[in-house]
Amino acid sequence: MNPTDPAAIFDCYRRLRETRPLVQNIANFVSMTISANVLLAAGASPAMVHAAEEAEDFSAIASSLSINIGTLSPDWVRSMKIAAECYGRRGKPWLLDPVGVGATRLRDRTAAELIALRPTAIRANAGEILALAGQIGATKGVDSTAGSNAAVGAAIRLAQSAGAIVAVTGETDYVTDGQKLVAIEGGHPLMPLSTALGCGLSSLCAAFLAVAEPMEALVSGLTVYAAAGKIAGSGLKGPGHLPAELCDALYNLREAEIAANARVRAMPVEEVA
Amino acid sequence: MNPTDPAAIFDCYRRLRETRPLVQNIANFVSMTISANVLLAAGASPAMVHAAEEAEDFSAIASSLSINIGTLSPDWVRSMKIAAECYGRRGKPWLLDPVGVGATRLRDRTAAELIALRPTAIRANAGEILALAGQIGATKGVDSTAGSNAAVGAAIRLAQSAGAIVAVTGETDYVTDGQKLVAIEGGHPLMPLSTALGCGLSSLCAAFLAVAEPMEALVSGLTVYAAAGKIAGSGLKGPGHLPAELCDALYNLREAEIAANARVRAMPVEEVA
Amino acid sequence: MNPTDPAAIFDCYRRLRETRPLVQNIANFVSMTISANVLLAAGASPAMVHAAEEAEDFSAIASSLSINIGTLSPDWVRSMKIAAECYGRRGKPWLLDPVGVGATRLRDRTAAELIALRPTAIRANAGEILALAGQIGATKGVDSTAGSNAAVGAAIRLAQSAGAIVAVTGETDYVTDGQKLVAIEGGHPLMPLSTALGCGLSSLCAAFLAVAEPMEALVSGLTVYAAAGKIAGSGLKGPGHLPAELCDALYNLREAEIAANARVRAMPVEEVA
Repeated sequence: MNPTDPAAIFDCYRRLRETRPLVQNIANFVSMTISANVLLAAGASPAMVHAAEEAEDFSAIASSLSINIGTLSPDWVRSMKIAAECYGRRGKPWLLDPVGVGATRLRDRTAAELIALRPTAIRANAGEILALAGQIGATKGVDSTAGSNAAVGAAIRLAQSAGAIVAVTGETDYVTDGQKLVAIEGGHPLMPLSTALGCGLSSLCAAFLAVAEPMEALVSGLTVYAAAGKIAGSGLKGPGHLPAELCDALYNLREAEIAANARVRAMPVEEVA
Repeated sequence: MNPTDPAAIFDCYRRLRETRPLVQNIANFVSMTISANVLLAAGASPAMVHAAEEAEDFSAIASSLSINIGTLSPDWVRSMKIAAECYGRRGKPWLLDPVGVGATRLRDRTAAELIALRPTAIRANAGEILALAGQIGATKGVDSTAGSNAAVGAAIRLAQSAGAIVAVTGETDYVTDGQKLVAIEGGHPLMPLSTALGCGLSSLCAAFLAVAEPMEALVSGLTVYAAAGKIAGSGLKGPGHLPAELCDALYNLREAEIAANARVRAMPVEEVA
Repeated sequence: MNPTDPAAIFDCYRRLRETRPLVQNIANFVSMTISANVLLAAGASPAMVHAAEEAEDFSAIASSLSINIGTLSPDWVRSMKIAAECYGRRGKPWLLDPVGVGATRLRDRTAAELIALRPTAIRANAGEILALAGQIGATKGVDSTAGSNAAVGAAIRLAQSAGAIVAVTGETDYVTDGQKLVAIEGGHPLMPLSTALGCGLSSLCAAFLAVAEPMEALVSGLTVYAAAGKIAGSGLKGPGHLPAELCDALYNLREAEIAANARVRAMPVEEVA
């Protein structure tokens, strides 16, 4: 199948809604409620479970895991590593969202340790991807000052070295496995002004990992979110109601709305790498 | 008085609004904001206080306590037990929401330890009540795959063994003290698609425990929420705005809206036990 | 310049929007999402970073810090003190929001220890200011039972003893450096019924500290919030949508709306001290 085909993407979404995968999230304190609501609206079953003592038991029943390093502390880092190992051992997919990597040594070290545990996928903004690639100075706290275009090359190299699907999101989103590259357009300019919507997207991508191959899962998750985001943002006078509207758009999303609100296309890797 | 009478239920709500009880919550990270907003909209005064070091001081000034095990860690478990003991020693009511019990051994153990400290009331979904009754396999993460009807017998036995009022919520809610049984209908199908609304309900029931006898308090809390939920959900196109609409409905709830949006009736225990 | 002039206040806000300061928040679990959204809507760049291990690195890149003691634990207290020291050492401004001081000894001790580290500014409700001034019994959990008027004298004395700008907020807000006093009217009666809006205001004031002298920063932050709050609350049927409307009002706020929705005036200190 062609993962850039809106019909294939919607099939994938239909599968998510039908199977209702249980997705464990080690989320951050800012994003927990938002990620849970995004997953529920999309049709998945979210669980926010972070104790190291629960990692073994929960990895047995959940279908996939999202690890988000947004609000770190040494205890949580320990839990993240144990959970990543549990999912790895069971051959279940997990996604890393390296929030704010580049801003502090704790974040750099944690992201490196988690990447060494071989995440199935990594989703980040341009500044974070550049920081992971060793290009310091591109992050400003947790927001990116670089455009996603500037990070495509770094994303491809990261995908190759980490053996993971890498998604770099921004005005245009890019997904790569190190060989193939897909670009997704959509979303809404208000999205960066509502906190943790990127974290919600990471959780949604983890849900798609439960129902599709990794490359297809990330392309589908980003496209569904891009379409829903565009629908959600239109007509709003500011960012306040965006999370609620985004959940409504995810909940109601129909097949025709994907092609109408997002553009997905395969790109030659040679152009950017 | 007859606790299934809408007028009595509204009297109870009026008392809550007038006395504005201070309710301590050891909530989970997903539900904190929602529980606080539900309590404020209903007219109570919420406090999210979880440190073991504060349990003694805070139990002296608060009227009731809600303990929610949604996002656990060993430190928090310790705080929960200390807080439960403080309220027990002072003869002040407290409620347990055993989120996700059945999913991990840490949750099973924590719920058992807290029930041994004799909560005034327990509120849970069907899967959680069945797990507490030793019927494994009924939970899927934190969502229930079983209907509330299937857990009424287990709820009655739990009420008897724990000496607590037990509420099992779902499409129909049930409240029992082990002898009497009350069924409540209302709410809205979108409610399970917005995270932590069950946690908010638990906090609200804890507030009612500050102004009424336990059985009456739980029946009143569940009925008020069922009516407000039905009002909140009608007219929505998805789950996104439901928490905000629920708060507005609680804030504005008038006596006539209770009978119009919820149905409360006593049931013979023999029918189900 | 005259810090009570709406044009000067809006200039200050324009500076914030243009420079987009990175503001570190050691927020509480209830307020994290709200504070982040308030900062984003106002044009600042929020970061919720609480690990002691990150304090040194993050204080190097952020412009200001907000410390909120709403949900305490000993680990977090340690982080707060280390972060306050980092900002103090670098001469960068930080603000303290002593949520619930007066309710427990842990809060009293933590607030005292943090004030000893010389915050640039303190923002609190009347009960908290009275508690800091040693007048016990004025708090009820985290809500104030005293009006802001009753705490102006205590605020002036606290500003003098702590060497900080002190803001006491309520129906009327007051800002003082111990010599001068400014009163601000605005806001909306629904605001106390939506959780953590005071915490969001503290975070916003911390953002203003990055772009103005402390007295001007606090007057500007409180006035902008008072105007946006009044706009946000009008037309609402309850508190449910207030956080979203407040963000929209902050995002769209124009110069003329400040004078139209808030009243700022210098008051003679002698009248109240």
